[in-house]
Amino acid sequence: MDSVSFILFGATGDLAKRKIFPALYNLFLDEKLTAPFSIIGLSRREWTDEAFQLHVKESLSHFSRRFRKEENRLAEFLQAFRYCALDVTSSADYEPVLNLIESREEELGIQGNRLFYLSVAPEFFDIIASNIKERGIGTSKGWKRLVIEKPFGHDLASAQQLNEKLSTAFREDEIYRIDHYLGKQMVQNLESLKLANPIFQSLWNNQNISSVQITASETVGVEERANYYDRAGAIRDMFQNHMLQLLMMTAMQFPEQIGPEYIRHEKRKIMKSLRSLTKENVAFQVIRGQYDSGEINGKQVAAYKEEPGVESSSTNDTFIAARLWIDDPSWRGVPFYIRTGKRMEKKSTKIVIEFKNTLHDLQEGHNEKATPNLLIIEISPNESVSLQLNLKNPLNYGQAEPVTLHFSAPGKDVPEAYESLIYDALRGDPTFFAHWKEVELSWNWVQPVLEAFAENILPLHSYPAGSMGPKAAHQLLEEDGFKWW
Amino acid sequence: MDSVSFILFGATGDLAKRKIFPALYNLFLDEKLTAPFSIIGLSRREWTDEAFQLHVKESLSHFSRRFRKEENRLAEFLQAFRYCALDVTSSADYEPVLNLIESREEELGIQGNRLFYLSVAPEFFDIIASNIKERGIGTSKGWKRLVIEKPFGHDLASAQQLNEKLSTAFREDEIYRIDHYLGKQMVQNLESLKLANPIFQSLWNNQNISSVQITASETVGVEERANYYDRAGAIRDMFQNHMLQLLMMTAMQFPEQIGPEYIRHEKRKIMKSLRSLTKENVAFQVIRGQYDSGEINGKQVAAYKEEPGVESSSTNDTFIAARLWIDDPSWRGVPFYIRTGKRMEKKSTKIVIEFKNTLHDLQEGHNEKATPNLLIIEISPNESVSLQLNLKNPLNYGQAEPVTLHFSAPGKDVPEAYESLIYDALRGDPTFFAHWKEVELSWNWVQPVLEAFAENILPLHSYPAGSMGPKAAHQLLEEDGFKWW
Repeated sequence: MDSVSFILFGATGDLAKRKIFPALYNLFLDEKLTAPFSIIGLSRREWTDEAFQLHVKESLSHFSRRFRKEENRLAEFLQAFRYCALDVTSSADYEPVLNLIESREEELGIQGNRLFYLSVAPEFFDIIASNIKERGIGTSKGWKRLVIEKPFGHDLASAQQLNEKLSTAFREDEIYRIDHYLGKQMVQNLESLKLANPIFQSLWNNQNISSVQITASETVGVEERANYYDRAGAIRDMFQNHMLQLLMMTAMQFPEQIGPEYIRHEKRKIMKSLRSLTKENVAFQVIRGQYDSGEINGKQVAAYKEEPGVESSSTNDTFIAARLWIDDPSWRGVPFYIRTGKRMEKKSTKIVIEFKNTLHDLQEGHNEKATPNLLIIEISPNESVSLQLNLKNPLNYGQAEPVTLHFSAPGKDVPEAYESLIYDALRGDPTFFAHWKEVELSWNWVQPVLEAFAENILPLHSYPAGSMGPKAAHQLLEEDGFKWW
Repeated sequence: MDSVSFILFGATGDLAKRKIFPALYNLFLDEKLTAPFSIIGLSRREWTDEAFQLHVKESLSHFSRRFRKEENRLAEFLQAFRYCALDVTSSADYEPVLNLIESREEELGIQGNRLFYLSVAPEFFDIIASNIKERGIGTSKGWKRLVIEKPFGHDLASAQQLNEKLSTAFREDEIYRIDHYLGKQMVQNLESLKLANPIFQSLWNNQNISSVQITASETVGVEERANYYDRAGAIRDMFQNHMLQLLMMTAMQFPEQIGPEYIRHEKRKIMKSLRSLTKENVAFQVIRGQYDSGEINGKQVAAYKEEPGVESSSTNDTFIAARLWIDDPSWRGVPFYIRTGKRMEKKSTKIVIEFKNTLHDLQEGHNEKATPNLLIIEISPNESVSLQLNLKNPLNYGQAEPVTLHFSAPGKDVPEAYESLIYDALRGDPTFFAHWKEVELSWNWVQPVLEAFAENILPLHSYPAGSMGPKAAHQLLEEDGFKWW
């Protein structure tokens, strides 16, 4: 890995404090940051380097799991931080930024490799990127990379517009779009499950799999984010990005070779094979829901329409379930069911691969309890892989009954998503970042759903807070002879 | 299940005391013995019914795990027991036996169903069977069944001779040959793993499996059984019966239908496809071993040749390892490795299915730790199923490392092998008994090995007590690029 200048826009913000500083600190402690390194914080406030370093230290004291244990190395880490005030819309402000970057590079002997991390509101992506280009900040003898956070647009057209603007300053291979679900250990293991395990390579197709279910349920409601969320809904907040990324990671086939370009190629193939919807038939494949009042963990909670900042007439989706079909030879006939929502019964993200149950004909009634084989990948809050099999229960006359082979990943000291993703960006591995084509194809698939929602041409089902979504989301599977596991 | 007379030859013996009475008692408590039932004990000693019932009660107090808990039902159970003295070689002695059976049947209203359990030395199988026939004990309006224990012969010829004699009195479908390994929970689950789990049906062939390893290791030595064991050796004591049964159960393919005849047909197909050895080439496929002195669990133990009752010149095998090939389309090219021995490092019976490792070409060196996928079925002392996969270890730069998905069967109150087998014999399910053809084909395969051993035309490798057998047993796998897991 190269020595690098890490240039952080939005350095006084919430994400920096909670995620980015702790991630960098852990990478530093694990010696995954090649010394020397320069970290330059940028934000509107007028801070000194010392104030900034103090802010970083305080952030770590709250959010780094290793703050206490490794305090002796903290001073060394903080020395790498410098600060420069910047109004991102003011072209002139970029000159001192460039001066600071260059003087630190010279001082430390860094060869001009620059990673620009935009931890700012998306409306500023455009102006920052063009200033980086126009003020020569992106021109050095080293490489440059741009790391941005979602949202990447609000719909297909706005996403394309944003991408066009970014691409005047950065090539696609220089842009690292963070989808933090792709940084999660078990999501990355969706790749390993197939790549490193021949038995799953053999099983990963419609010969053996009858359906795939992807669930991301939250117990929290809209919290203080009504202003954003009431315009976004579950479809933009979760579905278009995280859920479709999980779909791609689950369904992608074994690439010809190992390598980011091959893996991302396979992911794009999945998105291209996804059967399109039209505004008119969305209602047959997609269930829209909104939470009503209810009880979660013994606590009464309000309906979405009663949340602060939400209009009582809001038709915003806080839940979405969908049936998707991948029209390729491997997956033809295998429904992919996705659901995600707020104020659900429990917080859990998991993927269930249901294998075909070819046993019925042979059972002669004496194995009627045999259930399908399931591979269950739990992504959060626990990280585990389980395989559900049928074995004879000697306590029940030798009846076949489901048993679960289980593995729990060690939770302790495992890198968080941001740590893993920042490390990958620093060393130039884009495997677990969203490629523009993936983003565009996702918006493209979602676009008719957005329109159908906007025009209210499908029902808005309410569901009680604390449930697993509206009845219609269960009926969606029952139609096909399945159920949510 | 029908009401039945359970007629036990060798009723004062060790097996009856340790296994058969406790098994019957558990079946009774679990209401798996259809009332009314009659149990008639036969042995040479002159006992009264009361003395016999007391003996049964004492046996249960030592060997039944449920003796204390269920004492209130014990009296009812013991009432079913009657006793009759019998010299099995004396034809006249069988008349009072018949009278007792019939009077109890009349008294209790049992329709003449009779199960004859021969818990006696094998040299008496023949005379008992012919007396049952000639004295009319096997003639009633109900069914009759014969349950016998190994050994079924000492070699191919003696086994055939024994079978011929038994078959004058009992049809093959009336003979239940106990191989108590077939009564073990996880051995029976070898059937379920395939029959009830479509994913394993897809994987159970030479497209996906590279080798199969079956190990039954004991820590005990010859104990007080030198008189028998020094003539039998591991080949007769374990290999010809238990180990080849495990091989059949592991390798058998999915039967056309569920049912004992179909399953046993598939097992025979495996034995018929087993590549034959000749006396001359045994040495290339079979390793013969004998334990030397050594240390087990911190305790010094003697060499086999120093055991009481063993000649210092004995060439008896206390260990055997073999490579077997099944020449059918499903298993062509997949070696089956079997090893069993006494005085080994630990007591364990397990089967390891090693799946093909097709990953090497793709790894580009960054996954060099990827190990083959393994399915591990532990039969004893614990009963478990494990699947070894490769997953990324986030603590080690995302390297793929082996992890194990694990299921342990509940050990508590699980029926023992004898319980399950006696229950099956009572209800007439021969699935988990050794068919004559299996026995004959096993002796047939083993015969050249017996001869090669007898003629000492292959090496006798010594191994230290407490090891996993002689080096040659490891080299046997290394030749093929494998290792014992």
